[in-house]
Amino acid sequence: MTKMKSQYESFREKIKVILYGTDTVLGRLFDLVLLGLILLSVLLVMMETVQGINQKYHSQLIICEWIITVFFTIEYILRIISIQKPVKYIFSFYGIIDLLAVLPMYLSIFFPGASILSVIRALRFFRLFKILHIPQISHQSVQLREAIEASKEKILVFIYFVLISTVIIGSVMYVIEGKESGFTSIPVSIYWTIVTLTTVGYGDISPITPLGQFVASFVMILGYGIIAVPTGIVTAEFAKNSLKNNTVSGKKTCQNCNSQVHFDNAKYCYECGTELPNI
Amino acid sequence: MTKMKSQYESFREKIKVILYGTDTVLGRLFDLVLLGLILLSVLLVMMETVQGINQKYHSQLIICEWIITVFFTIEYILRIISIQKPVKYIFSFYGIIDLLAVLPMYLSIFFPGASILSVIRALRFFRLFKILHIPQISHQSVQLREAIEASKEKILVFIYFVLISTVIIGSVMYVIEGKESGFTSIPVSIYWTIVTLTTVGYGDISPITPLGQFVASFVMILGYGIIAVPTGIVTAEFAKNSLKNNTVSGKKTCQNCNSQVHFDNAKYCYECGTELPNI
Amino acid sequence: MTKMKSQYESFREKIKVILYGTDTVLGRLFDLVLLGLILLSVLLVMMETVQGINQKYHSQLIICEWIITVFFTIEYILRIISIQKPVKYIFSFYGIIDLLAVLPMYLSIFFPGASILSVIRALRFFRLFKILHIPQISHQSVQLREAIEASKEKILVFIYFVLISTVIIGSVMYVIEGKESGFTSIPVSIYWTIVTLTTVGYGDISPITPLGQFVASFVMILGYGIIAVPTGIVTAEFAKNSLKNNTVSGKKTCQNCNSQVHFDNAKYCYECGTELPNI
Amino acid sequence: MTKMKSQYESFREKIKVILYGTDTVLGRLFDLVLLGLILLSVLLVMMETVQGINQKYHSQLIICEWIITVFFTIEYILRIISIQKPVKYIFSFYGIIDLLAVLPMYLSIFFPGASILSVIRALRFFRLFKILHIPQISHQSVQLREAIEASKEKILVFIYFVLISTVIIGSVMYVIEGKESGFTSIPVSIYWTIVTLTTVGYGDISPITPLGQFVASFVMILGYGIIAVPTGIVTAEFAKNSLKNNTVSGKKTCQNCNSQVHFDNAKYCYECGTELPNI
Repeated sequence: MTKMKSQYESFREKIKVILYGTDTVLGRLFDLVLLGLILLSVLLVMMETVQGINQKYHSQLIICEWIITVFFTIEYILRIISIQKPVKYIFSFYGIIDLLAVLPMYLSIFFPGASILSVIRALRFFRLFKILHIPQISHQSVQLREAIEASKEKILVFIYFVLISTVIIGSVMYVIEGKESGFTSIPVSIYWTIVTLTTVGYGDISPITPLGQFVASFVMILGYGIIAVPTGIVTAEFAKNSLKNNTVSGKKTCQNCNSQVHFDNAKYCYECGTELPNI
Repeated sequence: MTKMKSQYESFREKIKVILYGTDTVLGRLFDLVLLGLILLSVLLVMMETVQGINQKYHSQLIICEWIITVFFTIEYILRIISIQKPVKYIFSFYGIIDLLAVLPMYLSIFFPGASILSVIRALRFFRLFKILHIPQISHQSVQLREAIEASKEKILVFIYFVLISTVIIGSVMYVIEGKESGFTSIPVSIYWTIVTLTTVGYGDISPITPLGQFVASFVMILGYGIIAVPTGIVTAEFAKNSLKNNTVSGKKTCQNCNSQVHFDNAKYCYECGTELPNI
Repeated sequence: MTKMKSQYESFREKIKVILYGTDTVLGRLFDLVLLGLILLSVLLVMMETVQGINQKYHSQLIICEWIITVFFTIEYILRIISIQKPVKYIFSFYGIIDLLAVLPMYLSIFFPGASILSVIRALRFFRLFKILHIPQISHQSVQLREAIEASKEKILVFIYFVLISTVIIGSVMYVIEGKESGFTSIPVSIYWTIVTLTTVGYGDISPITPLGQFVASFVMILGYGIIAVPTGIVTAEFAKNSLKNNTVSGKKTCQNCNSQVHFDNAKYCYECGTELPNI
Repeated sequence: MTKMKSQYESFREKIKVILYGTDTVLGRLFDLVLLGLILLSVLLVMMETVQGINQKYHSQLIICEWIITVFFTIEYILRIISIQKPVKYIFSFYGIIDLLAVLPMYLSIFFPGASILSVIRALRFFRLFKILHIPQISHQSVQLREAIEASKEKILVFIYFVLISTVIIGSVMYVIEGKESGFTSIPVSIYWTIVTLTTVGYGDISPITPLGQFVASFVMILGYGIIAVPTGIVTAEFAKNSLKNNTVSGKKTCQNCNSQVHFDNAKYCYECGTELPNI
């Protein structure tokens, strides 16, 4: 009995190393197979929506999707079994995504069409960084996240003001253009304003009256200046971060020669070689 | 009589705390209700312009709008009554917006359709910052405003040159493309030039002659370089601001020569040598 | 005789002050009138090309244009007469523009339609800065010009590479899309590539084959990274310039206290107030 | 015999100077002629695809292309003959391009239409910098390459996340919009998402349902913030480079601890206090 339990324990341990580990050959191989399957699975769901392909290979596609889904289900169960704290995993970000990755196929038994939701499996790709385990890339993605995080508040304040402006501009354009030229309601006009301010410019709705075109020109030039703002925010953040690594805030003074331009992480005065105070 | 007056005074005081205050529970609650009503009111005006919704629920929409308008009117009157200097409020930015927020509905009695102007209520959202009273966000919006303010002049000079260019380019395209392909007049061609230079690109007007497409390509590549300029201006401003925090906050002013750009840790004016005040 | 000559001389001097000067009331007034006339004249040429307006007011427009042209002609002649070195003026940038501003109308006597070229008068607006004579704006425009000048070379090198890429990408898309979907020839495909890379995106030509749309997606994401480059170049230039004004290159050392973090334009040590050496 | 060999040697030497050299008059002249021929050749291939021109001048175009191809072939052979290490040249970047530049015409004997591939000759333009031999431009292009190189990793990580997002957003739009409005399959919806996020906005596919337009607005505002990221990355890189010139050029290496980020005027290593070499 104890032997069986210990056998089960060792099996659990083995599974855990394969599923969660990235250091062993087997663990790494499994991760790569998993990545390949996720990619394949997302491509299958996409192809299912393409008329021509779906008509020819419908049953093949469905079979492949079921095979992958069963594989993912087994993987999900093993992940729960092998980990120490299964509840923590189940309610973690990746745990929820792992569940959402298999649910749609089972739902599609009762609700045909639900299988499209399997596309959510794409989110499993976020694991790539953990899997690839390349320190440099992790470092870059941390820097990216930090810069975006730091500029988030400013950008939200900015978008808040932009949204109020779109309501006003959209209403003005609705009044000017009338219903003949696509500006059929204020919400549609606001949609047009966003399309214009962001310089996307579909052209599905565009002003046709001279006054409307004049105001639109004004909005575009405004959008010109406006697009500079989020860029400015993010760039300043990046610049600050990349300078921070070698900043000179002037807080260090050499007690021998009184020189003051030192790196913040400097240990010795570059002028006379005296040890600098640690701040 | 004095009692009545003092009762009225205390009522005024109470109203003032609710309407203008953000520190008491009641004042804050009122602000949140107000925000909700403004949002609701803007949504109502929008929905009124959507054909499908308006036909079904026209009378309900109108009734709701009137209720909100009456509420806003009472609020406006109470604001005037409760404040010490009503004239100052009436002619302040928010005072004018508060008036403009209620006027259109009353105007719509005589001029049907004027109710659309109620959308101007969206401007009342600008109060959000005062209401939410989050120091960090206020700080961010101040930084945003400062950076935009500082780059305003440069951007205006830049837009001036861009506008002259659009006149020249627009005329050239008008001559090249002729009237067959949408470039029906110079103003329309200028509109096209702005649409192109700002990279909006609706496609409602686009060159069809080979020469026109060649010149358009040139304009686009020009627009490429040009869009970099406002971004560069704003970004440099942001970067300067974010670096300034570490070194020169501009809080020190020399009392002898009025120069203001000093290091935060400066003791003497670098311009005239006078000792600086310690802050 | 000498009196007459001296009278003529004083007349010339007077004219010169009015035409070239910006300090006297009369000179400034003349400049403002001139600006107004240029604006009016450009608007007239524009309106002439608008079908509806031209049909109604053709003769009025032509008369106004002739009056302005005669005024500009007299101004041009007076400018030549009153200045010391007329040849230098005639072949200067503004001299040529002043001539080009009047020529088209006279040409239109022989070649109807040449009057459109009068739009070149818009270039006379460039004088605005000299006329308005606002030091701050002049300063900003100098800063703008410097930053653009400094980044010119880098941007040209960049555009050179982009152009080679457009030739390759355009040819690939021509081969992929074939003649059915608007990619009728390589030049047209190159035009499409430029429209796409600059994120203008008219939509007059757009890929319809799956492979074409795939390659187009790739081009767009490339354009994403590419648009960052000119912006980066210009921004870095602006940032450098705006920092330069208050830079600390560390070349100044106080000979009394040996402190080294001084502004490059500092005259006194901010630490001890000693005069700094002038470098 | 030896004389003949030495004659051949001197001929080889002469050819080498002309083909590879840029310092002699003849070498430079040859380079310019070559550039002109490449340009002409690319233009010829382009014109061949233009219906109108091809019908009129088909035989002339073909003859010109053959002449240039023969010239390029001779040049290619001479390049191989004259160089010391022909194998190294053949498999170098330019060697392969030189071969690819002539192959398509010979292929077109068997496969008509292959001549379009001659457009690959445009890649030979990359030699321009080597040919023009202008140090300043080379310097600029090195700086450009460095900044792009340095930001490559961050941009790739960024694009990876954007691509995952496009899959999710594309699927959502496919579900919302249905098949009536152009969102016929998930791949097409992803194509639309990329068109929108990059602010290209063709308008060949655009949402028509209110919910679709709402989500699209959201995507555009997201794209707004997103476009700032690559710009921010590249700009920070440029700014860092341009600031680096003034302060830390990285030319000083501590011979004791190998640290490399020192001020150009540093005398002692800030890390370990060892004296730095004077450069």
